[in-house]
This record gives sequence, C-alpha cells and structure tokens, in this order.
Amino acid sequence: MITFLSGGTGTPKLIRGMRAYVDDREIAVVVNTAEDIWLSGNHLSPDIDTVLYLFAGILNTETWWGIRGDTFLTHEELLRLGEEEYIAVGDLDRAVHIARAAMLNRGLSLTSATARLASSMGVRARVLPMTDTPVATWVQTDAGPLHFQEYWVKYRGKRNITGVMRRSEEPPQATREVLDAIRSSDAVIIGPSNPITSIGPILGCEGVRDALKKQDVISVSPFIGNEPVSGPAKALMEASGYEPNSAGMQRLYKDFCDIVVQDIRDPVRIEGSVQLDTIMSNKEKSIQLAGEIISLVTQK
Amino acid sequence: MITFLSGGTGTPKLIRGMRAYVDDREIAVVVNTAEDIWLSGNHLSPDIDTVLYLFAGILNTETWWGIRGDTFLTHEELLRLGEEEYIAVGDLDRAVHIARAAMLNRGLSLTSATARLASSMGVRARVLPMTDTPVATWVQTDAGPLHFQEYWVKYRGKRNITGVMRRSEEPPQATREVLDAIRSSDAVIIGPSNPITSIGPILGCEGVRDALKKQDVISVSPFIGNEPVSGPAKALMEASGYEPNSAGMQRLYKDFCDIVVQDIRDPVRIEGSVQLDTIMSNKEKSIQLAGEIISLVTQK
Repeated sequence: MITFLSGGTGTPKLIRGMRAYVDDREIAVVVNTAEDIWLSGNHLSPDIDTVLYLFAGILNTETWWGIRGDTFLTHEELLRLGEEEYIAVGDLDRAVHIARAAMLNRGLSLTSATARLASSMGVRARVLPMTDTPVATWVQTDAGPLHFQEYWVKYRGKRNITGVMRRSEEPPQATREVLDAIRSSDAVIIGPSNPITSIGPILGCEGVRDALKKQDVISVSPFIGNEPVSGPAKALMEASGYEPNSAGMQRLYKDFCDIVVQDIRDPVRIEGSVQLDTIMSNKEKSIQLAGEIISLVTQK
Repeated sequence: MITFLSGGTGTPKLIRGMRAYVDDREIAVVVNTAEDIWLSGNHLSPDIDTVLYLFAGILNTETWWGIRGDTFLTHEELLRLGEEEYIAVGDLDRAVHIARAAMLNRGLSLTSATARLASSMGVRARVLPMTDTPVATWVQTDAGPLHFQEYWVKYRGKRNITGVMRRSEEPPQATREVLDAIRSSDAVIIGPSNPITSIGPILGCEGVRDALKKQDVISVSPFIGNEPVSGPAKALMEASGYEPNSAGMQRLYKDFCDIVVQDIRDPVRIEGSVQLDTIMSNKEKSIQLAGEIISLVTQK
C-alpha cells in the first residue's frame, strides 16, 4: 500500500501517474483540509474534491480543480444578480458541496462524508481528510488577515504576506484512518505540493509526524531553484521563515523524510537527493515520474 | 395603485392578467412568506419567487414555480450522490436562493433582499414580503407536525391533517412597506389563493387586518362548491374549522372584504357576490377576469 500526503495540484499529478502501476485499492491519500471553506451556504473541500474527481475520472485536468465539462449556470446567474461568488463553482461541483454540507450538518464527520461521496462516485482509493477538526490556513497581509482561499482565489495572490497562521478551535488531530493508512503503508510519498499550505497543515495534525518517522518517506520538491513549479509557495515559504527552495523543504521535513527527490534542473544542492524530471506537464510525464519513484520504493 | 395579497398560484394568475390594464409600477403585491424554507444551505421563498419571475417575464407558467427553460443539473447530481433535495431547484432558480441567503446572512431584511433581487431582474412592481419576521406554516398530521413544504411537496399532500399552525419566534409584524401599500392603494385584490396557507399568514401579520378594513377589498374565491380549483385548500380549510367553500372564505375575510367574486359554476350562495368566470386556464382568461375585476373597482 502506498500513502500519499496531498494538496490540490502537484501530488494529484503524481497520483495520476501512479495509477499506472498501483491498483486504486492499494492507494490511500491523506488530504489537506485547511483550505476548506463554507461558500454559498455549502462546504467546499477543494483538495479533497480534486483527489475524488481524479480517481472518479471526472477531474478537469486543464485546471486541476472542478469537473471536466461542468457548466457554471448558477455561478453566472449569481453574477447577474449582483452576488458574485469569488470561487467559480460548477453546477455538478456544487452538488458535491451541497451533499457534503448536508452530511456535515447532520453530524457526520468529514471522513465519513468523504467516504460516502467517494462511494457514490465509484472511487476505490482511500481518500482521507487529514482531520475531522475544522481548521483553516490564514495569511497575514498588509490589508489584514485573509483566509487562504480569499488570498489565493479572490485576490489571486496579489497581496504581500508577512505570516501564515492555522486557525482551529481545538488542536487538529489526525484521524484514526489517517494514522492507520500511514502505519500500514509500504511507503509514504509527498508529491511536489506546497510545503506550507498543502503539506504543512497535514504535518500539523497531532500524530502525523510521529507516524511518518517510523515509515519510509519520499518527498518530491516543488521547487526549481528559488521558484516553485506552480502556485504561491515562494511567498508562503518566505513568510514562514524558510528559503523558498528544496533546502527549505528539506528543513521542514527533516525529522521524517528519507529520500528527497529534486528536479534535474534544480541547482540547489541537497546531500543524498535523487534527481528526476519532476515537471508533470502531461499524463505520460506523470507516469514516467511515478515509475521512477516506485523503483525507489522497491529498491529500499 | 392596486395592491394584491398573494400566494403562489391563483393570485399570480390574476396579476398576469391585470398587467394588461395596469402598469407594473402601479402594482404592489404583498406576498406570503410562511412557506419560506432553508434548503441546501440557501433560502427559498417560493411565493416571492413566483411573483418576481412573473414580473420579470421568466416564470415557468406551466407549473407556476421556477424559471422557464431552467435546467436541474445540480439537483439531478444530488440525487446521484444520494442526497436528494425534496424540492426541485433549477440551476438559475438556485442562484436566486443563494443570493437571497447571502443577503439575509449579511443582515439585510427580506424586504430589502427582495427589492434588490427585483431590481436585478428588472421588476418594476413592488414585490413586498408580508413580514421580515421569519414565520412558517406547519400542519399537524397523523405522523406528527410537518413544515407545509414537506407536507405539500415531499409528501404531495398525502397525509391526513388535523390542524394548521404558524410558527415564529415573535409575532409577525407587517412591514411598513406592506401597510403603506395597502393604505395608498385604490383597491386591494385577493386573488383565488388558498385562504389558510397563502392569505391566512398575511392576515396574521400585525396591522394587516386593520389596514384592510379601511380599504376597498375584493376577494376572488378559489372554490367551486366544496372543492378548490387547485391545491390543498380543502383539507386545510377543514382542519382549520372552516367549510371548504366560498362561504368558508367569506367567513375568514368578513371583517374587511367588500366584494366577493365567485365562479359562475359555484353553487354556494353568497349574498351580494359577483359571479364571474374565475378559471384562468390561460393568459387570455386571466386578462378577461382581470378586466372584469378592474371594472368592479372603477364602478365603486
């Protein structure tokens, strides 16, 4: 069994490739939920949805969010009504948000709600929210604190950020399902996800770091030099006091990471790292990288 | 100025006809809100929406609810996800529910939210929720109390009802806008709406009956003999202790109603009533009835 720790883009691209080698039933994905938000009365869990849609074969792999071919009738009508939604929610995607909110409002845990959605969509991999405790990433900006979704989607990352916070009413606990998945896996793979906002919240869940220390963990750097391959990782690493490069990532993961995978173009020197082509610009490249990573697991 | 008291079917059909004689800006509609409900995270106000859509020219006049040509992508997907919505919400219709909920959640009154929606839709008539106090009609059934929407939509009226209640945290007050509309109108018209669940809640708002007593009020009976032309009025009248006919209606309205209009086919004898063809099976028949009612107003 392979367990991934995942955000919403880099790691799902690697999972896409891994499916060429590993049956979905042998894959567990521990997913960041700190970007979850209630919007338009319902519950978005953007990273969970990306992973669910990927396994269900319905993910829009142009954008890596939402459902392929979805329409935006309600979203567009809201604009005409003067009540713009700052996140573009598709009509089929919205049904998932409504269903999840209904289940949460009935008292189901996010883990149970996700399992039911996965089952309805025919997903056989284990898609596991990192925690059932509501938790959110906020960033401190010049204009005050913003929920990460507001910072990244509403303001398109165009705010200076000076700090990153995680907010929750109680310290988030990893679920039993998450810890079981880590403990029973042959390897844990952290794809090229944002170390601060995608992987950081997972590592912040009580029990995760300790469980990871006992496992073989491979992490793929999302950086080439001082730039992330995509997304807002640079500003977030700097605001958190880390170099925005593979060395900064290594420092964040140093207590549990066994193998660092760097891109072949990455000039930053990491002792003992494996250099691979990590730019997954299409499915074939995802499969190629996944194959090379699988061979690292079996070599050990 | 003409003011209507309206539910969601009979009176809107009469308003449709009245628009042939009276400019929308000279029409105010006091609308029942006791069938409002929060559903799928958002706020449905079924009678308000029917009236708004009518004036906006987008009402589905096959069903007298929802938007003509609307799709049900989200609603149908919810069914596939195992989280059925018991009210069929269209994709464009849902945007209205989301926008209204967003405004109410920001602290706007239902009156203000409705005015903004009306403005976005190009509606020039005054569409006035009867009250800004949340209030709901519940029915007592063999299987316990049910919200009216559940009784009528979810169970399709197939429950024995023994009583009708209105629930609100505080006694509903008619809004200033409602009382102004009644006081400044040349006539108040109550179309063939359900006296218990459509008009009853309006009459139950503090200030309405007193304001009506000072105005010329015409009410059109929704009954022919002991049967309503449509809808669940019969069981509701009986459960409320009234005969399910024009005489029962007259008794409910006796303190303020000046002219009762009965259908020409109605065998129930009402002293001084006007007999007209009230079956508005198409737009032409709505226009014909509205013209006859307008002449009653101008004769006075």
